[in-house]
Amino acid sequence: MGPHPAVADVRRAVRLALADLEPGDLVLAACSGGADSLALAAALGFVAPRAGLRAGLLTVDHGLQEGSERQAAEVVRLPLGLDPAEVLTVEVGTAGGPENAARQARYAALAEAADRLGAVAVLLGHTRDDQAETVLMRLSRGSGTRSLAGMPARTGVYRRPLLELGRATTVAACAALGLVPWEDPHNLDPRYTRVRVRERLLPALEEELGPGVAEALARTASLCRDDADALDAWADAVYARAAVTAGGDCALSDIPGDVPIIPGAVPSDVPGGAPGDGPTVTLAVPELETLPPAVRRRVLRRAAITAGAPPGTLSAAHILQVDRLITGWRGQRRVEVAGGVGALRRYGTLIFAATRTAAP
Amino acid sequence: MGPHPAVADVRRAVRLALADLEPGDLVLAACSGGADSLALAAALGFVAPRAGLRAGLLTVDHGLQEGSERQAAEVVRLPLGLDPAEVLTVEVGTAGGPENAARQARYAALAEAADRLGAVAVLLGHTRDDQAETVLMRLSRGSGTRSLAGMPARTGVYRRPLLELGRATTVAACAALGLVPWEDPHNLDPRYTRVRVRERLLPALEEELGPGVAEALARTASLCRDDADALDAWADAVYARAAVTAGGDCALSDIPGDVPIIPGAVPSDVPGGAPGDGPTVTLAVPELETLPPAVRRRVLRRAAITAGAPPGTLSAAHILQVDRLITGWRGQRRVEVAGGVGALRRYGTLIFAATRTAAP
Repeated sequence: MGPHPAVADVRRAVRLALADLEPGDLVLAACSGGADSLALAAALGFVAPRAGLRAGLLTVDHGLQEGSERQAAEVVRLPLGLDPAEVLTVEVGTAGGPENAARQARYAALAEAADRLGAVAVLLGHTRDDQAETVLMRLSRGSGTRSLAGMPARTGVYRRPLLELGRATTVAACAALGLVPWEDPHNLDPRYTRVRVRERLLPALEEELGPGVAEALARTASLCRDDADALDAWADAVYARAAVTAGGDCALSDIPGDVPIIPGAVPSDVPGGAPGDGPTVTLAVPELETLPPAVRRRVLRRAAITAGAPPGTLSAAHILQVDRLITGWRGQRRVEVAGGVGALRRYGTLIFAATRTAAP
Repeated sequence: MGPHPAVADVRRAVRLALADLEPGDLVLAACSGGADSLALAAALGFVAPRAGLRAGLLTVDHGLQEGSERQAAEVVRLPLGLDPAEVLTVEVGTAGGPENAARQARYAALAEAADRLGAVAVLLGHTRDDQAETVLMRLSRGSGTRSLAGMPARTGVYRRPLLELGRATTVAACAALGLVPWEDPHNLDPRYTRVRVRERLLPALEEELGPGVAEALARTASLCRDDADALDAWADAVYARAAVTAGGDCALSDIPGDVPIIPGAVPSDVPGGAPGDGPTVTLAVPELETLPPAVRRRVLRRAAITAGAPPGTLSAAHILQVDRLITGWRGQRRVEVAGGVGALRRYGTLIFAATRTAAP
């Protein structure tokens, strides 16, 4: 008799996610003890030895609730065949709200441990339901295709093997294996946006629009990811051809208006500038005019970031204003973007540079 | 004293939407008598004469409720300065559900009237709130960027000047002008998906995620539209270069495996084939292999549709299966797509053709 179908599904997903690794590589499962990451860790313990891989477990003690230390200690003692099995104790700050601060601390600890232990991959237990929640939360920000793409199956050392499986599958897998998942009280605390999305909004959507909303949201994420990747590739190609980057030791006033645009890749060894001054980026307006708006705005975003604008503070509204220097040109002055970086049109070029005054 | 700000907003939106028209052109407002289309019609009556345009009104009597005839007659008698003002009486069928059937009948009647009266534009009263509802409904289908793009500001003869304004603005504009909007009882009938989205889901989203969800959804629609347009442009360019279309008088078995790929545009005068046979489309696999998946799938979709697959029945799953003939080639057989059209890989080309047996 084979394993329970849910157990088989989780194992298959983990096996697929590890198919590119080399024998002897170390893979770690990040496990809170909840159903998703518990099913994941159990599957890793089964799959890894059969694939010639070494496998371990990490659990994070956020210290946010009574007994978290004991709970973490129980997770590392689970007989899942994972070694090393470590508790990572973190300090959670307050920056960016409680969910954000806990996430920051958790990822920092996981990255440190992966590095220290020499792991090639850290597996995360996010399921299709988590993906649906993420898409719904991001949708309410109105920030476009990349944002709707949700969580990627891979970023850096992290892999999410369960993104195509529903939470019901991980719950069933744990039950079939006789594993009792730990229910984090935070997962029911309505002060967290994700909890409200899970407990109230997704059920309301299913109620009013019919079943299958979580699957549809996850499918949306996947399509949006491919679309965003393709547009980024296009923008990268245009940027590499159209942008000239000069070292950060000159301010806007030093840039001659008629810098020639040299087609070709961005020079890789740009001379360093004074602290706080990013390099100056020059784009040829004729290269940009004929682009579809979605691509042009992505190119402008790259230029602003290369010139030193912090990505986090760079809004779509900033980029739209710069775009008007191309599509609605009537002699506008320099447009301030973010982080002291501004954009200026001069003789058929668009120049992105930090002001000297913006330097600390 | 100028007009009420809401009245000014609606008029400005209508003026902008008509800026490209020529003096003497006829513009029609589609008006149900509800707040959105009433504010729209009133604004058209004000803006059109000042812009040298002729302006009229159309109202559709769907005959779905007691008194609809009287209601329609009242709308055409409103003193909005619109002439002609016509009631279009339609028969609503049942195909595709009640909302769909009513919409089909309405648009058919509007298009007929626009054509008969020689109108260059028909204005529709959809607001940002309608757009948000549309995006939310489509999201639950999981069908990607183009679907999330919502309703366009223009399609054919139709224009939607109010897509950037909230419903609160049209309600305020009507009140300021002393116009009493008609509340369609269907707008409160929870048997309609759109009503449930408006009355239950959007308020739930605002409650759980914070205010501004409708604006965010409309912004998402706008970004997704630009992204979808850019990707379609890319796919069109690739298709024009990579596709060879041959007349529909040959079946799959007639196509030699090594048809050379001729770069250049698709020939415009393809010889006609037997009824039910679409033309055969041949794509060069090497042209497709290096494309980002989002673009490649769009190219495959174009090929399938050109070969005769009905767009409505062509799912993402069909296209994914064809895509595997490129990215997961291990000698698969012909993949059936839709409407009797199939795709086949032979000697470095992908061939889309209808089977003879699929012809009626």
